[in-house]
Amino acid sequence: MTATTLDAYPDAVRDAVARARERVSALHAELPRWGLVVWTAGNVSERVVVDPDAGPGERDLLVIKPSGVTYDELSPAAMVVCDLDGTLVEGTRAPSSDTAAHAYVYRHMPHVGGVVHTHSTYATAWAARAEPVPCVLTMMADEFGGDIPVGPFALIGDDSIGRGIVETLRDSRSPAVLMRNHGPFTIGRDAKAAVKAAVMVEEVARTVHISRQLGEPLPIAAEHVDSLYARYQNVYGQR
Amino acid sequence: MTATTLDAYPDAVRDAVARARERVSALHAELPRWGLVVWTAGNVSERVVVDPDAGPGERDLLVIKPSGVTYDELSPAAMVVCDLDGTLVEGTRAPSSDTAAHAYVYRHMPHVGGVVHTHSTYATAWAARAEPVPCVLTMMADEFGGDIPVGPFALIGDDSIGRGIVETLRDSRSPAVLMRNHGPFTIGRDAKAAVKAAVMVEEVARTVHISRQLGEPLPIAAEHVDSLYARYQNVYGQR
Amino acid sequence: MTATTLDAYPDAVRDAVARARERVSALHAELPRWGLVVWTAGNVSERVVVDPDAGPGERDLLVIKPSGVTYDELSPAAMVVCDLDGTLVEGTRAPSSDTAAHAYVYRHMPHVGGVVHTHSTYATAWAARAEPVPCVLTMMADEFGGDIPVGPFALIGDDSIGRGIVETLRDSRSPAVLMRNHGPFTIGRDAKAAVKAAVMVEEVARTVHISRQLGEPLPIAAEHVDSLYARYQNVYGQR
Amino acid sequence: MTATTLDAYPDAVRDAVARARERVSALHAELPRWGLVVWTAGNVSERVVVDPDAGPGERDLLVIKPSGVTYDELSPAAMVVCDLDGTLVEGTRAPSSDTAAHAYVYRHMPHVGGVVHTHSTYATAWAARAEPVPCVLTMMADEFGGDIPVGPFALIGDDSIGRGIVETLRDSRSPAVLMRNHGPFTIGRDAKAAVKAAVMVEEVARTVHISRQLGEPLPIAAEHVDSLYARYQNVYGQR
Repeated sequence: MTATTLDAYPDAVRDAVARARERVSALHAELPRWGLVVWTAGNVSERVVVDPDAGPGERDLLVIKPSGVTYDELSPAAMVVCDLDGTLVEGTRAPSSDTAAHAYVYRHMPHVGGVVHTHSTYATAWAARAEPVPCVLTMMADEFGGDIPVGPFALIGDDSIGRGIVETLRDSRSPAVLMRNHGPFTIGRDAKAAVKAAVMVEEVARTVHISRQLGEPLPIAAEHVDSLYARYQNVYGQR
Repeated sequence: MTATTLDAYPDAVRDAVARARERVSALHAELPRWGLVVWTAGNVSERVVVDPDAGPGERDLLVIKPSGVTYDELSPAAMVVCDLDGTLVEGTRAPSSDTAAHAYVYRHMPHVGGVVHTHSTYATAWAARAEPVPCVLTMMADEFGGDIPVGPFALIGDDSIGRGIVETLRDSRSPAVLMRNHGPFTIGRDAKAAVKAAVMVEEVARTVHISRQLGEPLPIAAEHVDSLYARYQNVYGQR
Repeated sequence: MTATTLDAYPDAVRDAVARARERVSALHAELPRWGLVVWTAGNVSERVVVDPDAGPGERDLLVIKPSGVTYDELSPAAMVVCDLDGTLVEGTRAPSSDTAAHAYVYRHMPHVGGVVHTHSTYATAWAARAEPVPCVLTMMADEFGGDIPVGPFALIGDDSIGRGIVETLRDSRSPAVLMRNHGPFTIGRDAKAAVKAAVMVEEVARTVHISRQLGEPLPIAAEHVDSLYARYQNVYGQR
Repeated sequence: MTATTLDAYPDAVRDAVARARERVSALHAELPRWGLVVWTAGNVSERVVVDPDAGPGERDLLVIKPSGVTYDELSPAAMVVCDLDGTLVEGTRAPSSDTAAHAYVYRHMPHVGGVVHTHSTYATAWAARAEPVPCVLTMMADEFGGDIPVGPFALIGDDSIGRGIVETLRDSRSPAVLMRNHGPFTIGRDAKAAVKAAVMVEEVARTVHISRQLGEPLPIAAEHVDSLYARYQNVYGQR
């Protein structure tokens, strides 16, 4: 890998990249903390807006984990910066092999500011059966607004994974998609929100799995799902 | 949120609130420690008696976690104080969105001094099927005195959850109720006892679930449940 | 609790008790470390031989955890000393409510120097169905020499639990018994060996449970179990 | 055990042994970290090449954990060195009782530089049913290139285990074999790669187990397995 630099970018962008490196590095620690990854698997990215007046795919950058590096070795400086074609812009290591999928999402979903990918156990177990997680918990209604959908089987190496994510999530309130035989991808307005969705998708995939082991969980009526979702998105937390 | 104060209350109440803030903050750490919560889910509260001569719903206060705040950020000062209508009395953050349920319990169950709510995995899995946990373990007989009951489906936003808890627990020896499609609420003479019940409800929900996966656990005769419960409540621990 | 003392005992016994307090306190930390206990559940004891020429039930002491005390509060000084009738000999707290069962084992099994009791999840799940764990793993053959047997249902408060343990283990190579609807008790030549057996009984109960969830594990021929057991007991480890 | 020394070996070999002691000691910490072992179970070894011109079985050494020693007591100095007949060459403790199996692998698979053995729960659960783990996850295709195969039942004490490992892995792309009723052995170009395979075999054994609990995971077409495997082995990570 040839080192490259952000010299051609304005100061404000370089500052924004530096802050995103801090956040993305720190947020990676949440993945092993919540048991979502082993060894070097999993990655978090965040979008850095370069020109608010340009289209989302044209100028923006993303900060992401380098490929095949363990969680113990991560630091803000170890993160790498790519443009939305997945080309390395700053950093001395190869970016995550999932960078193309992250970049595709940022190009096609302008409101998305963060993307997370893991192979977390229970979410991946549903993905291996290509079965959506049914919305039978109030915390699922709060966070996902319905079932967690399944995306297509897709090979790594071109836009297939990114396209599968975008096509599945475009018509869903869910910030999580279970890519078939692969694992979950989550999105959010920033990297922290996408990490929260990655934690929650595993939590609900696990709880519903366990509930289903001994019988059929009771559904929640659609109008109750809607009212829980509306309330949580608008009222929960600190304003 | 407007900061408010306890200036109108006697010194003894302000001291009792300060001590309750310490206890409630420290007890929140038990929830992630025992794996009962992820991210910002879950909450512990404790009653502060203001006027021992008044009815339980009239003057008392409760100390509880603020809404949507992570477990790393908790401290005695971060806790918030509400009256039993759920109105903020001291603190600068919005109280937990479950405050109304806690307050309802304190208003209607005078002997309850602590309430805990989690979405712990196995207890919530039983709740999603609306199935009580049968009393097939001596530790369940000790601690719960019988099956762990299920409460109704209830939406957040009014008294429904609190009423469901109180109506279910009023006729039970169990300090835990599994609210349908939602998760467990537990009560105790103080916050520590309610936290212990939250730890134990998950432990027994998990053990009985696992036992049932490979066959039917053997019941414990009702008279044995009674004698185990009586002994544990009166003899166990340090007097 | 009235404090009592070991003043009537020879110096060598008082020294042996002090060393046993250190070991028993340290070994308690292994129970939460390996996930075998929650809150204050579980206990470890060790025998202290007072008069090697007397029968085992006549003079020996045991060191054990006090009742209902959390694992964070344990220290050598917090342990309590009882005679083999379960009467407190040294210490200011009530002994574990399982002390009578431990004492019964020491009185009736002279070669036993340590006893451990937990409610570890998978072992207790087998116990709730009163089903022995079949010997389908080489590590089970090594450590247990066959199936892990089930003991009777027994109420706390008299010799029933101790008698159930002794009658079940007397004819078994297994250092572990699953007391019905209750949980595992393990024995060893000292407390450390009994703790190892407590760790291993949960490990094999869990692995065989999981294996059985998707089909029937293959048995190990009896002569292979015998040869694995003989080798492990005589060759493994440092001599 | 008589202490022996490497005095008869060239300086370069003694240096290589010293570095291997560091690596093997540090890598043992990964086994409890990822939950693959309890108590003293499990072991990691690494080959030290003595004479690159000799055949692999003739002169090489291996560094391995001593038998029955806890993970807390491990250090570079505590590791032991054996030749490929399993004879102790340097160290004061008995080598792991699995040393003969490791040595057999090094003698018969010249490209293998590291071997790991655990009783990790889910992999051992498949091994107890003698059932291969089917390749239904992209991460399995990446890492294992197909199903994870099962080796024969074999008693410890002669070459049976080593021969079973070698005969099973010789015709497989998988770096892991599930020895029947026993547990997984993994290989790699060095000890770190074998440890990674030990972590991954448990991860995929667990995820596929959980997926199968509620239905049948969807297979991945053979040509997709091949292309995922080829890409991962050649492109992933830092070059």
